[in-house]
Amino acid sequence: MNQEAYQVYCRTRSRLNALRYVSFLTGWDMQTEAPAGAAQSEAAAQGELAALQYEIAMAPDYAAAVEALYAERDGLDEVLAHEITEQYKELDRTRRIPKDEMIAQQELLGRAYGVYVEAKQSGNFSLFEPYLERILAYVKKTCSWLETDTLHGYDVLLDRFEPGFTRKEYDAFFGVLRERLVPFARKVAAMKLDYDKGFAEKTFPVEPQRAFCEYLRRVLCFDTARGLMKESEHPFTDGFGTDDVRVTVHYYPELFTSSIFSVIHETGHALYEQQCDPALNGTFSGGGASMGLHESQSRLYENMIGRSRAFWEPHFPKLCETFPEQLQGVSLDDFMKCINTAEMSFIRTEADELTYPLHIMLRYQMEQDYIENGLAVHDFPARWNELFTEYFGITASNDTEGVLQDVHWSYGEMGYFPTYALGSAYAAQIYAAMARELDIDAALRSGSTQAVNDWLREHVHRYGASKYPREILKLATGEDFNPNYYVDYLIGKYSKVYGLQ
Amino acid sequence: MNQEAYQVYCRTRSRLNALRYVSFLTGWDMQTEAPAGAAQSEAAAQGELAALQYEIAMAPDYAAAVEALYAERDGLDEVLAHEITEQYKELDRTRRIPKDEMIAQQELLGRAYGVYVEAKQSGNFSLFEPYLERILAYVKKTCSWLETDTLHGYDVLLDRFEPGFTRKEYDAFFGVLRERLVPFARKVAAMKLDYDKGFAEKTFPVEPQRAFCEYLRRVLCFDTARGLMKESEHPFTDGFGTDDVRVTVHYYPELFTSSIFSVIHETGHALYEQQCDPALNGTFSGGGASMGLHESQSRLYENMIGRSRAFWEPHFPKLCETFPEQLQGVSLDDFMKCINTAEMSFIRTEADELTYPLHIMLRYQMEQDYIENGLAVHDFPARWNELFTEYFGITASNDTEGVLQDVHWSYGEMGYFPTYALGSAYAAQIYAAMARELDIDAALRSGSTQAVNDWLREHVHRYGASKYPREILKLATGEDFNPNYYVDYLIGKYSKVYGLQ
Repeated sequence: MNQEAYQVYCRTRSRLNALRYVSFLTGWDMQTEAPAGAAQSEAAAQGELAALQYEIAMAPDYAAAVEALYAERDGLDEVLAHEITEQYKELDRTRRIPKDEMIAQQELLGRAYGVYVEAKQSGNFSLFEPYLERILAYVKKTCSWLETDTLHGYDVLLDRFEPGFTRKEYDAFFGVLRERLVPFARKVAAMKLDYDKGFAEKTFPVEPQRAFCEYLRRVLCFDTARGLMKESEHPFTDGFGTDDVRVTVHYYPELFTSSIFSVIHETGHALYEQQCDPALNGTFSGGGASMGLHESQSRLYENMIGRSRAFWEPHFPKLCETFPEQLQGVSLDDFMKCINTAEMSFIRTEADELTYPLHIMLRYQMEQDYIENGLAVHDFPARWNELFTEYFGITASNDTEGVLQDVHWSYGEMGYFPTYALGSAYAAQIYAAMARELDIDAALRSGSTQAVNDWLREHVHRYGASKYPREILKLATGEDFNPNYYVDYLIGKYSKVYGLQ
Repeated sequence: MNQEAYQVYCRTRSRLNALRYVSFLTGWDMQTEAPAGAAQSEAAAQGELAALQYEIAMAPDYAAAVEALYAERDGLDEVLAHEITEQYKELDRTRRIPKDEMIAQQELLGRAYGVYVEAKQSGNFSLFEPYLERILAYVKKTCSWLETDTLHGYDVLLDRFEPGFTRKEYDAFFGVLRERLVPFARKVAAMKLDYDKGFAEKTFPVEPQRAFCEYLRRVLCFDTARGLMKESEHPFTDGFGTDDVRVTVHYYPELFTSSIFSVIHETGHALYEQQCDPALNGTFSGGGASMGLHESQSRLYENMIGRSRAFWEPHFPKLCETFPEQLQGVSLDDFMKCINTAEMSFIRTEADELTYPLHIMLRYQMEQDYIENGLAVHDFPARWNELFTEYFGITASNDTEGVLQDVHWSYGEMGYFPTYALGSAYAAQIYAAMARELDIDAALRSGSTQAVNDWLREHVHRYGASKYPREILKLATGEDFNPNYYVDYLIGKYSKVYGLQ
């Protein structure tokens, strides 16, 4: 190995990692406790950190080191070879994007966000339309700047968020959903579950909610010596390496299941980070392998574990004990119905497990229509509403509940949404593989998820980002991506909940 | 003005400020909430940030810009001229310190800290002696590297911590203390205050202590839109600009006055930062003018305001209401005696207002003995004990209570201690000036410190670091530093408390 290049590489990597770490801490501070007055200067500091990282990553000595190591990648150990390949690709991508255009886009995004919020609040798409036009024009240009022999158009964006997944794979995936899942979801969502829903509408004070989430934290074995749990407006997980992983929760007194499932969801993300091989700390190969694989872990914990009867058998009594008044006389059966209800609704982030992928299919179609089929930004609301009625059978009365509901496009992120549905599908395939080796329900009835955590560490988490997500999926499940596990799981589960068997 | 140089200067200043800001946030995180596992990687990130700041501040284009602006400093506006002069001096100092020696010292400090802690815990000076010898040898070399026409030896260190104060000024200051204060303090400390001390030894639960500190926060008008208050092992204040100022508290159930006076002390520091002219945000001229002037504000609030009867007249009932059981039947008179007792003791940080400066005089003498008079590190304990007996009339039984008690020398900080005593003396002089214009007691009896805050903002705080501390003192009080205000204040106050009038 070119030792000189490797030393330059390691030196710069350690500096870039330090900057990413403090950038994470600054963001964490902004979202969890910074005084209001600090917002502007913390944002400015984040901007300087981003510029500094860009300059360091593009410095000639570092770029030359990456190129030198890439040239001899076949002789490097497997983890380093993968990392260098990814860094080389990233360097190549960054070089292809005109710097002045990138800066102009960053500035535009900074100015656009407030307008987006205002447009969303007032349901006034036309207010945001000129901004969105310019933001997405840059995104479309990105596709041509980053085009390769094998990646064109929308595929460029898709592959960035989930390496190895382009329209070919997604079309097959969504095709299976369209054929098998959509008719089933439409049928189930038209039915009503028969139970006394009164308890779910009661008020659940924040303090006992907090205590119960701390209880769940222990059930899930989230290690607080290497992480912490705090509150923020929107729950999220972030961290750096295996030894500093942080999650947040938000407590709604009028919706007590929200904090429960968001804690389980975020802890799924957190366990993925905490259970990565610690030898990868300090490299660029730690953390999750992709957006889709990360989301698979949060959803596996939230939906497959966290909404299962076996999970709640040991913990439901604790929940009743925590809220004796609100849950008096409520049976585990009714609670299970409450947390596994499916219905058509407008807002993606509030959708249930069954109808969720329909929201993603709609966005996938919209993004293709824009990038590939000439859909004008001006026509986004009409096209959205047309597709929504087609998939869901209901029509939103305004753009706040429609095309303006998600922040992603206003950030210039296209190609991201599909990873959400992919994550659920990965989760089902991984869960099926785990079930072949482990009696999951028996493990959950023991009162802790430790056995599940152990299986996932061994088969998924420990690899970090040292392999591509499809490779990890194959190692963990013995086969390439297969969306039928997901459809089988959803149809099996909801047939049981709704008595359709 | 050389516009090109000024642009380079502003560009680099903004980048350095961003790095200082995130470095502050990282330190804040480490001291208030980071999981234990994060300690090592956060410290490593801090090291990278420090190295990066050094490189940026020493970059040829920035250095050339500082030199160009320094050359035309007479034509610059007053604030910028002062700032450029300070940056020029700092650049000059940094250049004079051999980089390899600086790095070796940083590494040594990193390794030495754990040994210091172990030596302090076991009272074993000889364990730490070889480290301290090397740490202080570097400090002594610093004096020769940074020597100028006017600054030699120990003066180099003194002037760095408090510009304009060298042995000449400190000798005069401590001479007055030795002559007028030491005999008085010895006399008072030998007396006993007659009151029922029982209440001070009771247990005061943390939760109501927290509520009372929040009450004090409002009394002192600390603005939480531009700052926050949290908990940490050792209370401190830190921040960035006027809009992000943070203080911490520590609650001891067995020592209820600790949190009260540490909140008032830290809020004194915080008000100095919050009340700086906001036009100085984003420059290097915000924040406090010196260690001594910063300490003057915390001590003015803690001792002169916070231990005064006028302050407690409106707030003592609230304190009794917060701790109805512990303070039942306690009079304001007894409470005033409790918080204004003087006695000889071994530990500087626990010393009362009257005997505190004796601790500083001892350290000033020790530092001079080492830098100027050939005292060997090996003889530190013996010399310490000799001086302690001379000043205090009592002798410590071990080095934990003696020469090992403070962390400063183990960090290579000599010349810092004298600013603590200077701060108290500044405070007395500033308080006397304020008293000529404002009926302070009447203001405090109104229940808020707003009038005091306003006076200090106008006469001290708003200048930030845009002038030297001696200039600010002169602007605020109408005369140069005069230690007699301090001695008059202490003798006047304690004569009254101890009935010596």
